[in-house]
Amino acid sequence: MSTAPYPIEKLSRDRAAVVLVDHQVGLLLGVEDPDRELLRRNVMALAKTAKAYGLPVVLTTSAESGPNGILLPELRAELPDAPVVRRPGEIDAFDNEEFAAAIRATGRDQLIIAGISTDVCVSFAAQSAVAAGYQAHAVLDASGTWNHLATLAAARRMENAGVTLNNTVAVAAELQGDWRNQGGDQLAGLFASHAMPFYGSLIPYVTPQD
Amino acid sequence: MSTAPYPIEKLSRDRAAVVLVDHQVGLLLGVEDPDRELLRRNVMALAKTAKAYGLPVVLTTSAESGPNGILLPELRAELPDAPVVRRPGEIDAFDNEEFAAAIRATGRDQLIIAGISTDVCVSFAAQSAVAAGYQAHAVLDASGTWNHLATLAAARRMENAGVTLNNTVAVAAELQGDWRNQGGDQLAGLFASHAMPFYGSLIPYVTPQD
Amino acid sequence: MSTAPYPIEKLSRDRAAVVLVDHQVGLLLGVEDPDRELLRRNVMALAKTAKAYGLPVVLTTSAESGPNGILLPELRAELPDAPVVRRPGEIDAFDNEEFAAAIRATGRDQLIIAGISTDVCVSFAAQSAVAAGYQAHAVLDASGTWNHLATLAAARRMENAGVTLNNTVAVAAELQGDWRNQGGDQLAGLFASHAMPFYGSLIPYVTPQD
Amino acid sequence: MSTAPYPIEKLSRDRAAVVLVDHQVGLLLGVEDPDRELLRRNVMALAKTAKAYGLPVVLTTSAESGPNGILLPELRAELPDAPVVRRPGEIDAFDNEEFAAAIRATGRDQLIIAGISTDVCVSFAAQSAVAAGYQAHAVLDASGTWNHLATLAAARRMENAGVTLNNTVAVAAELQGDWRNQGGDQLAGLFASHAMPFYGSLIPYVTPQD
Amino acid sequence: MSTAPYPIEKLSRDRAAVVLVDHQVGLLLGVEDPDRELLRRNVMALAKTAKAYGLPVVLTTSAESGPNGILLPELRAELPDAPVVRRPGEIDAFDNEEFAAAIRATGRDQLIIAGISTDVCVSFAAQSAVAAGYQAHAVLDASGTWNHLATLAAARRMENAGVTLNNTVAVAAELQGDWRNQGGDQLAGLFASHAMPFYGSLIPYVTPQD
Amino acid sequence: MSTAPYPIEKLSRDRAAVVLVDHQVGLLLGVEDPDRELLRRNVMALAKTAKAYGLPVVLTTSAESGPNGILLPELRAELPDAPVVRRPGEIDAFDNEEFAAAIRATGRDQLIIAGISTDVCVSFAAQSAVAAGYQAHAVLDASGTWNHLATLAAARRMENAGVTLNNTVAVAAELQGDWRNQGGDQLAGLFASHAMPFYGSLIPYVTPQD
Amino acid sequence: MSTAPYPIEKLSRDRAAVVLVDHQVGLLLGVEDPDRELLRRNVMALAKTAKAYGLPVVLTTSAESGPNGILLPELRAELPDAPVVRRPGEIDAFDNEEFAAAIRATGRDQLIIAGISTDVCVSFAAQSAVAAGYQAHAVLDASGTWNHLATLAAARRMENAGVTLNNTVAVAAELQGDWRNQGGDQLAGLFASHAMPFYGSLIPYVTPQD
Amino acid sequence: MSTAPYPIEKLSRDRAAVVLVDHQVGLLLGVEDPDRELLRRNVMALAKTAKAYGLPVVLTTSAESGPNGILLPELRAELPDAPVVRRPGEIDAFDNEEFAAAIRATGRDQLIIAGISTDVCVSFAAQSAVAAGYQAHAVLDASGTWNHLATLAAARRMENAGVTLNNTVAVAAELQGDWRNQGGDQLAGLFASHAMPFYGSLIPYVTPQD
Repeated sequence: MSTAPYPIEKLSRDRAAVVLVDHQVGLLLGVEDPDRELLRRNVMALAKTAKAYGLPVVLTTSAESGPNGILLPELRAELPDAPVVRRPGEIDAFDNEEFAAAIRATGRDQLIIAGISTDVCVSFAAQSAVAAGYQAHAVLDASGTWNHLATLAAARRMENAGVTLNNTVAVAAELQGDWRNQGGDQLAGLFASHAMPFYGSLIPYVTPQD
Repeated sequence: MSTAPYPIEKLSRDRAAVVLVDHQVGLLLGVEDPDRELLRRNVMALAKTAKAYGLPVVLTTSAESGPNGILLPELRAELPDAPVVRRPGEIDAFDNEEFAAAIRATGRDQLIIAGISTDVCVSFAAQSAVAAGYQAHAVLDASGTWNHLATLAAARRMENAGVTLNNTVAVAAELQGDWRNQGGDQLAGLFASHAMPFYGSLIPYVTPQD
Repeated sequence: MSTAPYPIEKLSRDRAAVVLVDHQVGLLLGVEDPDRELLRRNVMALAKTAKAYGLPVVLTTSAESGPNGILLPELRAELPDAPVVRRPGEIDAFDNEEFAAAIRATGRDQLIIAGISTDVCVSFAAQSAVAAGYQAHAVLDASGTWNHLATLAAARRMENAGVTLNNTVAVAAELQGDWRNQGGDQLAGLFASHAMPFYGSLIPYVTPQD
Repeated sequence: MSTAPYPIEKLSRDRAAVVLVDHQVGLLLGVEDPDRELLRRNVMALAKTAKAYGLPVVLTTSAESGPNGILLPELRAELPDAPVVRRPGEIDAFDNEEFAAAIRATGRDQLIIAGISTDVCVSFAAQSAVAAGYQAHAVLDASGTWNHLATLAAARRMENAGVTLNNTVAVAAELQGDWRNQGGDQLAGLFASHAMPFYGSLIPYVTPQD
Repeated sequence: MSTAPYPIEKLSRDRAAVVLVDHQVGLLLGVEDPDRELLRRNVMALAKTAKAYGLPVVLTTSAESGPNGILLPELRAELPDAPVVRRPGEIDAFDNEEFAAAIRATGRDQLIIAGISTDVCVSFAAQSAVAAGYQAHAVLDASGTWNHLATLAAARRMENAGVTLNNTVAVAAELQGDWRNQGGDQLAGLFASHAMPFYGSLIPYVTPQD
Repeated sequence: MSTAPYPIEKLSRDRAAVVLVDHQVGLLLGVEDPDRELLRRNVMALAKTAKAYGLPVVLTTSAESGPNGILLPELRAELPDAPVVRRPGEIDAFDNEEFAAAIRATGRDQLIIAGISTDVCVSFAAQSAVAAGYQAHAVLDASGTWNHLATLAAARRMENAGVTLNNTVAVAAELQGDWRNQGGDQLAGLFASHAMPFYGSLIPYVTPQD
Repeated sequence: MSTAPYPIEKLSRDRAAVVLVDHQVGLLLGVEDPDRELLRRNVMALAKTAKAYGLPVVLTTSAESGPNGILLPELRAELPDAPVVRRPGEIDAFDNEEFAAAIRATGRDQLIIAGISTDVCVSFAAQSAVAAGYQAHAVLDASGTWNHLATLAAARRMENAGVTLNNTVAVAAELQGDWRNQGGDQLAGLFASHAMPFYGSLIPYVTPQD
Repeated sequence: MSTAPYPIEKLSRDRAAVVLVDHQVGLLLGVEDPDRELLRRNVMALAKTAKAYGLPVVLTTSAESGPNGILLPELRAELPDAPVVRRPGEIDAFDNEEFAAAIRATGRDQLIIAGISTDVCVSFAAQSAVAAGYQAHAVLDASGTWNHLATLAAARRMENAGVTLNNTVAVAAELQGDWRNQGGDQLAGLFASHAMPFYGSLIPYVTPQD
């Protein structure tokens, strides 16, 4: 576990891409950890973060015509131009060559990965990403799984394979770095509307009201 | 903690065996973490996974005529041909030569282990498996124990001894690899009926109804 | 984190002593993790385990005449012959020479430590034990602390310092090894009455009733 | 993870400073882990601990005129003389030169850090502190964040970067060392009023009442 | 609230019918109170209870081709001969004349009603049943709804309208009356397999094993 | 408790009005029962329900320029034409003559009331509504309060004063009556987006996808 | 609901008997509400309360040789002289003439009833007791059942039938009336050891220590 | 249950007194429902409410020199002039003539009662108050008891005896009536500091900062 110290690993807008794996309507219905609506808000915040910073996004789904269901419509609507790799069967997204190529095409070496489920789609992809030479960050609260022991097992396997465990707000904050950098206003907005709803309650207090 | 990166450790149908330790009716009644019925569904899913992939299974019990009680009848019914090693007293299953021999007889070097309790039966067997040269995966959500601190202690001891922490759905998915591989249909079925009941609710939507 | 593999570390009746730190009536009233009565049952089980196997026990308390209160009376009654080191002020028990001498006097090199609180009394003593050359096992569910984040921090600090995290039932099972060894009947009895009350419910089913 | 054994790392009154990052009224309203009022009591206890031992304290806030809001008034009232670095935008406090200078000015090399949120303000500052050569302790229960998965990710990232995870009571106890040392009475008082309210209930039993 | 005293209201095999409203695969996925799998086990136990005692059963569903989905397949398989009234739109089942006629056709005046959701399908049907002169029992744990406040509101509305609140095991026990009456063995069996899984663990202890 | 039987009390589109009391951004931040985001989704669903059925809505707030804060902006945006009575100090909205007049102006006699907090704003207004001759329904899950005992006390006081306890989905379903009535499509849509998010996951399965 | 006002209903040592229904080892294993060990402590406290005040006790069990199992051994040991009515099949204890006679033989008209389960054994017996002219108190926290909705339904049915809902400590306190009355010391003792374990922690503070 | 409609029962500053029963340091340590610190904040808020409105307060304690301990010191400090009736043994405070006289001496007929425990001290006193002709309000969240079933039983008994269930904030709001009435500023202050800590976070946003 010789992960390099933090400053070296800092996520950067120039090196990072966002990878969203199997955020499908059916799979969401089986999530027990975390709360499903928390997950939904966080993955939307992650999508909006990517847009705010101009990060490339790769979407992928598995067997949409089966029980897994389609990609979350609001996610697709938020990212209409992102490529969607529809995997015909590969469980580890990196086993799908189209997906691997889409990742390479981003030209990025820091992959911010979320998905459903944490223990399968996220864990397999993140571990393969590390094996392929990428820095991989698993965004735990924009992902979900079936019970708290599956979360525990997945977190340990990923960390042991060299994946960095992360969460939605910390990813965004690390990319922002300084609120005065470009994107700060958008970030506050998406925190308020999605990742941190209490922020939305506070903004009116510091904004002139008509 | 120099566990090799994920691709090297991938569970494979040719190398894996399933080991179910002390899933006995009495012991189940004492489980507080996870929910007892979740555990029951997951261990059945694990048994069915073994059958779907033709993995050898070794069952073992301890003192069935005492308070521990008999092997879960539904588990025995699912796996009528698997050897059952009835240990007369050894707490670490590997201390029982018949058990150790049964494991060797599988010819496999990847042991997928679940049991009751996580902190004793699973932890001792999994650590001894590693000491004996096997790769050992402890399936946390097909196992159970007495309180959340026992889960915590057992998970840390096992990981430090080189055991991989895993969970039911992730084990099955890793063995399946690609939904188009043999066993995919069976896997969806056992997810639907056992490990992921929400899946059973979704299947009718994508299956022609009379 | 180069803790040796499990078989080397096995707790043994010849090498182990039990150390109970500050299980005082007042401190117990502040415990929020785990449940207070669970803690009480487990520490009693640990005391009875020591008696069943003839392990030396060292008790210690801090400032009994102050808010911490006296040693749990039922614990004292269970272990009337164990030395009680009443520390006048040292928070880390090993800073008290009388305590350190009592430990040395046991002639044992495996210390099974529980106490209130996990984050102070257990953590400091266990870390100092490792520094002094002992193998130290912290029994998490016979100890307690103020909130779940204190548990998390204490567990991580102890593990990083070389302490093995353990739990009551696993400690007893490891010392027993085989139910046919001496002490097996007593162990079942103390499990039934203290550490695993469901076991007490099951014993009548397999015991002839008048 | 070669953190040195505990005795070497002991916090000391001569080497430690307390750093409180963004304990602002608005941010507190978004905390879900731990309980908000628990956090408030613990950060006050940490402030009072610093005063009791004469430790230098550095306070910092971010964008007080925005939704984050002002520094907790009771914290400011407790520490009227501590410098407050009002960061105009830097999310990692160490990116702010005034803050870094204030830390250097303390002349201390052990930084006891708490803040809101654990996953951003505490995690970034603590990791940067380690990178800058400080020993950093993150006080988890005097900090807070948005959900339990954010706590998990932050704790793992910090530990992997060399930060020691700690909690309020353990920090104070480690600095006190022996209840007979200077500050013992004050410590019992602040435990009773803030970090451990049950202690406040017990003190009257051992104090002469009129 | 002048509900007559208990003995007058006793459920009887000669007077009771079971009414299951909208136990559809999609609706089940939205249930948050109680646990979904508990609900599933209880409604199956209720169906088996009806069979064991020869009670007429009326099933009804709403908009099966829409998001509500089909009737739970295992429920249909258990009760292949029960009439299923597929309501084209009426939310209160009694607004559907085919349903009202099916109820009348049972010739029973005690209606044991469960469904999804408690606050709509069960509450409306049970209140209308009372208005139509039936005795109505709402089986809370074979029903489910969206949150605990919806449970609270529905329970109060039903009780105020004269509906008796009940639960699965109590309904079956009241119909059985004496374990020596016909149906006692079947009842123990369905408790063991569905409503009270712990019972299934205990049966082997009192049954001769091969 | 002689509330009339259900059919007499049925909510109707011709008689009902929606009254939303003090859903202000600051008050929302103090809600502990139910979950804040659940409350937010439900009050939005209630507002959309009113629009779908053409029910008059009366909004009221208290001391918006103080800590209570402004009306939830998304609620105001949803209902731009509804009157907002800004009470200068009256805690019971009916003590404000402008509010009472606004209610009278709706010409409705069934008031569907939600607000923050359940125990003050909702309880006082609902009890006064009954005293003034209205039928009052308190929508518990579109309201919120400070702890579960406040919910309990408020629910009992309201029921004893003749208020009907209700919940968001049941109110909407009662107004709809039959899914084939006007408004059915809109209702499914607002359930899907707000009150029952799982419904939004299921709709794609029964909707042709491109 | 015209239950007479409190002072008229006061439990009295001259009029009360304790009735414990089906506290059997197997049934206890299925209890989910309340915590099983809390229930065990409370029923023991109730038994000791009866002894302290000389109240007659009637015990009854159902099918002890089956899965229900034997009467809790510690309960039998506490009350060796109380009659035990072993019902061969009647679920409502009052349907068993031997039981009804044992109750009559107590000569008491206030029955303090606890049992497993709340929704069957307690509810049926308590309702029949009221029908037979007794005052019946159901001691909820010395009883237990399968889920929180079963508790809710049982509590409502009992109350509507005229049963008073009560709890262990309140029953004992009502019988005691004044701590200076006979039995006060014993009551403090059984609170300390069983119903209120925190009391046991406090007693040493006010008792001279050697 | 013919409690008069709300407007008749309104609490008024001219008719109300506050009665605090057995808020003693030892009893507080046994409270499990609600959270102990929530209870402490609420009873302090109730005391401050009484002061703000000039309501007479009667304090009473039981056996202070025993395990119950002394009156909460912060409560005594807040109300130095209120009479404290130290009951030598009576459990129902109204059985103590000095207490009954102190209540009469207030000249008030609306008693706002809180205490530890809800099921004994509050329930008995509140029921006796009703029997003596007072209006009694039991403030549930400024009181506490041993488990949730004790809360349930106590709440039902009190309501059936004619006691109004209430909570801290609702009591204060009802006495205030209109924020512009005398005491409004003080009320906001005590809400902010005690009953509703989130309010304290919001006040700085609407208060000019230096």
